[in-house]
Amino acid sequence: MAEKSAQDNRRRLTAKDLARQQREISVSEFFSKNRHLLGFDNPKRALLTTVKEAVDNSLDACEEAGILPEILVEIAAVDNREDRFRVRVEDNGPGILKRQIARIFGKLLYGSKFHRLKMSRGQQGIGISAAGMYGQITTGKPVIIISKTKDGGKADYFELVIDTKANEPKIITEDSIEWNGHPGTSVQIELEGSYQRGRWSVDEYLEQTVMANPHVSLTYRGPDGRERRFERASEVLPEDPKPIKPHPYGIELGVLIQMLHDTRARNVKECLRRDFSRVSERNAADICQAAGISEHARPSRIARQEAESLLSAIRQTKLRNPPMECISPIGPEQILVGLKSNVEADVYECVTRSPSVYRGIPFLVEAGIAYGGELPAERPARIMRFANRVPLLYQSGACVITQCVSALNWRQYGLGQPSGSLPVGPLLILVHVASAWVPFASESKEAVASYPAIEKEVTLALQECARKLRIHLRRRRREAEEDRKRLHIERYIPHIGEALQGILNFGDAEKERLVADLTALLQKSRKG
Amino acid sequence: MAEKSAQDNRRRLTAKDLARQQREISVSEFFSKNRHLLGFDNPKRALLTTVKEAVDNSLDACEEAGILPEILVEIAAVDNREDRFRVRVEDNGPGILKRQIARIFGKLLYGSKFHRLKMSRGQQGIGISAAGMYGQITTGKPVIIISKTKDGGKADYFELVIDTKANEPKIITEDSIEWNGHPGTSVQIELEGSYQRGRWSVDEYLEQTVMANPHVSLTYRGPDGRERRFERASEVLPEDPKPIKPHPYGIELGVLIQMLHDTRARNVKECLRRDFSRVSERNAADICQAAGISEHARPSRIARQEAESLLSAIRQTKLRNPPMECISPIGPEQILVGLKSNVEADVYECVTRSPSVYRGIPFLVEAGIAYGGELPAERPARIMRFANRVPLLYQSGACVITQCVSALNWRQYGLGQPSGSLPVGPLLILVHVASAWVPFASESKEAVASYPAIEKEVTLALQECARKLRIHLRRRRREAEEDRKRLHIERYIPHIGEALQGILNFGDAEKERLVADLTALLQKSRKG
Repeated sequence: MAEKSAQDNRRRLTAKDLARQQREISVSEFFSKNRHLLGFDNPKRALLTTVKEAVDNSLDACEEAGILPEILVEIAAVDNREDRFRVRVEDNGPGILKRQIARIFGKLLYGSKFHRLKMSRGQQGIGISAAGMYGQITTGKPVIIISKTKDGGKADYFELVIDTKANEPKIITEDSIEWNGHPGTSVQIELEGSYQRGRWSVDEYLEQTVMANPHVSLTYRGPDGRERRFERASEVLPEDPKPIKPHPYGIELGVLIQMLHDTRARNVKECLRRDFSRVSERNAADICQAAGISEHARPSRIARQEAESLLSAIRQTKLRNPPMECISPIGPEQILVGLKSNVEADVYECVTRSPSVYRGIPFLVEAGIAYGGELPAERPARIMRFANRVPLLYQSGACVITQCVSALNWRQYGLGQPSGSLPVGPLLILVHVASAWVPFASESKEAVASYPAIEKEVTLALQECARKLRIHLRRRRREAEEDRKRLHIERYIPHIGEALQGILNFGDAEKERLVADLTALLQKSRKG
Repeated sequence: MAEKSAQDNRRRLTAKDLARQQREISVSEFFSKNRHLLGFDNPKRALLTTVKEAVDNSLDACEEAGILPEILVEIAAVDNREDRFRVRVEDNGPGILKRQIARIFGKLLYGSKFHRLKMSRGQQGIGISAAGMYGQITTGKPVIIISKTKDGGKADYFELVIDTKANEPKIITEDSIEWNGHPGTSVQIELEGSYQRGRWSVDEYLEQTVMANPHVSLTYRGPDGRERRFERASEVLPEDPKPIKPHPYGIELGVLIQMLHDTRARNVKECLRRDFSRVSERNAADICQAAGISEHARPSRIARQEAESLLSAIRQTKLRNPPMECISPIGPEQILVGLKSNVEADVYECVTRSPSVYRGIPFLVEAGIAYGGELPAERPARIMRFANRVPLLYQSGACVITQCVSALNWRQYGLGQPSGSLPVGPLLILVHVASAWVPFASESKEAVASYPAIEKEVTLALQECARKLRIHLRRRRREAEEDRKRLHIERYIPHIGEALQGILNFGDAEKERLVADLTALLQKSRKG
């Protein structure tokens, strides 16, 4: 009865009614409505994200062109307001071809880094156009781009907005202007934001950026009129990572089927050898044999069932680890330099792990710790997270790095730790995940997703550091114990001396000697 | 010098080289590579996400059609393997029109719920097609859909995959088959997964779903052959939410400009009145006047600067709160029933807040707590999170709900809490965020993003519950104190009696009377 009345009270929608509402959604409409996914959920974070996307792009461009980056970051309050800023980021990179400018800055999911396997800061083709879209949503102002690709001549000047319904750029102004003598790019976005220093600020992001990228020079003009200059600490660019093919371990069936379908190789063996990394002539032959498939079979003819055999043959074949050259780690020396420049501590340790692979994609984990010194003793450890040399500030709880730190049993290394939480003590932990494709937990790229393979490597890196720390802590504890004993001896022996002086009728000189002898004797026996 | 050599060692890429690599990225390519964003980062979660997307869709479809949902969830191991499953979800909903089936299940960003403001479980048009894409990537198998929109006749049968490069469905098989006598939809996906019970399992998701949706009947056949039946606890469907217009508070400049541009209204006043909710004839006139804009101005002629005046006029005008009818809360009774069916506790409290608005979008927060009883006393509080009646299991750390629970000072309500962590004690906290558009922290929809307005409401709801809890805890503490004092009196008065008996030479009967009198007197004075 109740069922009946509940149904009668409303107009029943039919399948036809529901069908009428079905529509395609453009990716820019999607991200405009979900802009928190891109890091624009509050004004403070929006300002940081905008700076970050622009700086990351500039650094990528300079490095790919083999240029030591020289970056200018300028944030100015608009009309002296506290909720609206003009962000401008300028670099000395190679510039952008005129015909590409509109799409790079005015279209989501457009870029050069998605369809390759190579470490870079940007990867999705979303960031900078999303920052522009956010500016446009909150202030109605277009993005302004100036770009120059040659030493002489004029620069291209664009003002543009995104047509969100179509996800296409709409050019407002297009011009040629006099600009710097050298190539480079400048992007300017006006947006609603909020400027604060301290934790999760633009300042913190820039400080950590310079720390993980010692080859970068940077000038920062804040909205308070303050100018900060970061000089490069190294004149050497990091190794240039090379794009690689996917590693066969961790490749999935559907992806393999797609690759067999798309390959230009004439047969399965050739496809294995040339479309993947680390598959030798011999490996390829072994895999085909183990799968019961002819080496000469046409890839496009391989059925699902055969592809499955191929996949399990791959998984049973011993292959070399993925090549490292698509990744450029920060390196132990630089991590130590970074830690030391950041905190005054007693102990510094770090480790760079060997590369590993998740879903066929190489990655590498580095970790460093600083302990003691000026670090606060009674608080949870501070964690500094990096992905592909980019500092991660927000979304700490969603990040595999934080999760691994909390999950590790730090008590066995001599630290305090409330159950399931961060260790407590004078501890700073730095973790860098570098990969040809970092799996971020959201498009804002502030947290690394918890793939089991990555989880494992982060944990191993933390354990290595923690073991080294334990040695220090044990030595320290031993030394403290020694100190305590020494103090004990030093405190009581004089009394014994005086007592003996009375019993044995010694003079003061004899007593002093006796005390010295006793002290030496006891210290010796304790050590022996 | 170092700079020079670093540059010489590499081939310099020019702007032209970089331009050659620029390409458009299809949204399905993007999510295929980033499938952890959709909840497919590990096999256990992949299984849960697949079930969840299918069940959420079924519940939405049934409710929109005014049908009490009857759902079948079936998970079967494929070839007795532990890493591959066939998930099938069947409902008694209205079915799907034949011409829509391929796009609904084989195209990302296609759906009926994105372009409206109304509470529903699905909203993005991604979920179920992403689950199918994951199945296809990991097993090479197509999605199988059976759908029927009429009582008699045959059902439509489809097998399809996604062409990820184009983000378009590819139909493998299309047929007409005999099926159930009544309308409904069945979707079957084969995928790599891992089945476990306990925390973050399909079982937990279904238990909590039934708890927040008492009008649902559900049969669950697990891969272990076990069948569980959940009977509906209520024969009444929840209130059917109505789509609404955006509320002017929280609307952004860029959005306002877009709306003025797109409107069918002939003048600004009409646009304000009909394209927004809660703007009366009078309000609209006031806003125009305050902005110094003629009521009769053509909306498309409004310049950026005028739109800005309009916006600040809107923000200064007192408008009614957004309408509630686009949201259907679980309600206090049902939250209490849910809590009580879930845990044996001493105290249950709950609160349903009034609706509020973020970015022009109405939302509402409900919270409940259970305290004491069988809940573990020494562990961090357990949090149950819901968004639009859907249980959220993963990504707890990324969720505004968890963040608000940790940020609240529970000590002032009488609970233990390590700094910045969850409160510790025999406590279960339930929070439900219901909205016409829930801002999720990632496309997997397992965490609510931390918009300031939502943060505030969640905190207020928690505080209300915590205040109620404090009253209980204080009474409890008072009672414990009384007990202690009573025990004290009961323990010492007999001794006093005996001492007085000796001094005053009383007989035993007199002593007993004295003790009784003293006890009564002391208890009386203590109460007075």
